[in-house]
Amino acid sequence: MLNVVIMAGGSGERFWPKSREKSPKQLLSIGSKNTMLQETVKRAEALTSPKNIFIVTRIGLEGEIQKQVSYIPKENIINEPFARNTAAAIGLANIIIQKRDKDSITVVLPADHIIKDIRQFKKTIAAASKATKEGRLVTIGIKPSYPETGYGYIHRGDEIGSGSPSIFKVKEFREKPDLKTARKYFKKGGYYWNSGMFVWTTKRIEEAFKEYMPKLHNALKVIENSLSSPLRDKVIKEEYEKLEKISIDRGVMERAENVSVVEGLFDWNDVGSWLALEKVYKKDDDGNIVAGDHVGIDTKNCILMGEGSPITTIGVSDLIVVNTGDVVLVCKKTEAQKVKELLKQIKKNKKLTLTLS
Amino acid sequence: MLNVVIMAGGSGERFWPKSREKSPKQLLSIGSKNTMLQETVKRAEALTSPKNIFIVTRIGLEGEIQKQVSYIPKENIINEPFARNTAAAIGLANIIIQKRDKDSITVVLPADHIIKDIRQFKKTIAAASKATKEGRLVTIGIKPSYPETGYGYIHRGDEIGSGSPSIFKVKEFREKPDLKTARKYFKKGGYYWNSGMFVWTTKRIEEAFKEYMPKLHNALKVIENSLSSPLRDKVIKEEYEKLEKISIDRGVMERAENVSVVEGLFDWNDVGSWLALEKVYKKDDDGNIVAGDHVGIDTKNCILMGEGSPITTIGVSDLIVVNTGDVVLVCKKTEAQKVKELLKQIKKNKKLTLTLS
Repeated sequence: MLNVVIMAGGSGERFWPKSREKSPKQLLSIGSKNTMLQETVKRAEALTSPKNIFIVTRIGLEGEIQKQVSYIPKENIINEPFARNTAAAIGLANIIIQKRDKDSITVVLPADHIIKDIRQFKKTIAAASKATKEGRLVTIGIKPSYPETGYGYIHRGDEIGSGSPSIFKVKEFREKPDLKTARKYFKKGGYYWNSGMFVWTTKRIEEAFKEYMPKLHNALKVIENSLSSPLRDKVIKEEYEKLEKISIDRGVMERAENVSVVEGLFDWNDVGSWLALEKVYKKDDDGNIVAGDHVGIDTKNCILMGEGSPITTIGVSDLIVVNTGDVVLVCKKTEAQKVKELLKQIKKNKKLTLTLS
Repeated sequence: MLNVVIMAGGSGERFWPKSREKSPKQLLSIGSKNTMLQETVKRAEALTSPKNIFIVTRIGLEGEIQKQVSYIPKENIINEPFARNTAAAIGLANIIIQKRDKDSITVVLPADHIIKDIRQFKKTIAAASKATKEGRLVTIGIKPSYPETGYGYIHRGDEIGSGSPSIFKVKEFREKPDLKTARKYFKKGGYYWNSGMFVWTTKRIEEAFKEYMPKLHNALKVIENSLSSPLRDKVIKEEYEKLEKISIDRGVMERAENVSVVEGLFDWNDVGSWLALEKVYKKDDDGNIVAGDHVGIDTKNCILMGEGSPITTIGVSDLIVVNTGDVVLVCKKTEAQKVKELLKQIKKNKKLTLTLS
């Protein structure tokens, strides 16, 4: 059986102020009339049936998620009591799936990616699934289209087999590089963006947790024993609280043997910042991307996102302007990554924090 | 007797979006906790008593005006049915004052100027008032502090008498100059900004209307005869509708004999655009002028005006950002004069016009 775990607990801070604590990026419509979660579930349905689709999220979002994808069984929506990064989230989903299906292949998909070519996506997952039968932990790599510094990179090793898409051994995972290094990777080739999509068997990932993250493994065992008990939520909370915040990449993938990468041949956009909209929306004749009402004079190459109320501009270029009604963001395009930093500053201001995060 | 006519019918378009059709600049608080009209009336009270202060405005604003300066007699608020520029407004006020007081000196003050030095202001008006006794039409000139291109200029001639402040014959009124010409005026000296403040006797200005604007004079005579009749408003409307839109400068001052200029030695700011705030508000350490909540990273020399909801900025400089809740304006500082043009574009868009003008 193939199960899909959709990771939908993220906060999408770099997409603030449209993305908020209670309505993060994955629950918003970006580049589609559906929300990013709805689109992700649609992709998952191309792989398996709704009863085999699991959504891991954080407490507080489950109501909105059930509303958005009401045909996913309620019991498949897994609430994390605390944010403990991807290793814990994947571990928790894994024991819940294992309880039902000891011999599952699991596909892990972030809920906030835009992928339009479902045919190539299916083909990639099929190749990865096949590779899991040899006990491989498979990650999906995206061929860089420019030297991005905001992603981790995967340095591929030898090709395994000769299918399409190609599968390679992973030589090394690389942290987010500086621009010079990113340019080197880009020029040299053989490096992929680490997309955060994974394929493995429940058994294999459990073994990996046991070997490389024994504390997490122990906690998961305790939780596993409580899954049918009325104390389930209490136990999850107790165990979670103690866990380290660590990603699956750091906790498992970088340490494990037998890690492979499949080249994802589909289009891919993780909407990692406001700038990502340039690849999702069409520009007008002045190079502007406009959502909502806009009236401008001498306005060029801007991203203008009004919600309800209009944005007006005079003599500006290369700006991101977002109006969500309760706050306005005006940001130089090249500084879009600093939205996270801005949010930190807002959080320091008690008065603003209440309404803006 | 000294009467003051406050011109409060302006639309203050260059101060949009804070200034609107129904709440123009003069009815807003700028640089003071009082509104500009309240401050202007306060200055007028330094010259005469409330019963001798008249406010000319356009229909629709009288309610708010009565609220703001409730101690001004209701019958002193004069409603124009149509905007016909300053000559008509001054003419209408003049016949209403004449009905009460045949021998009045009248001081005309725009409602949207910031003047803080009341002592010097009084001294200037006193000197101008004195000059009216020789039948002079007196205009208040402001000594340029930089080569502004947004004002008309007054080229002074010979000095008359030897009072303080000095009074000069007017050699010539000059239209808004280009930058080169403005620089020449500024360097050469002997040129004043035309402030739109005037002092004369009711008799003298009536004579001037008769001589230089006979059509307006005739209309005023018709209105004068109806002032005590129940048809008053109807007659004003009928006569006004036919009038030409022409300023007092064009219609009278540029043509008349015996025109003088008194140098206003007080501080003066007509808040002619968003940029004017730089002279009214204090800048913070980054050179920003901030009203309302603001959180910023690398933000320099901006004017940031939030109302209710906060403005956030990253990596921007020399911008004007205004959020009024129903619309956001982002404008390069050097382009602030184009707000009027923007408003024209908005007016073309039926959907937006409804809510934004």
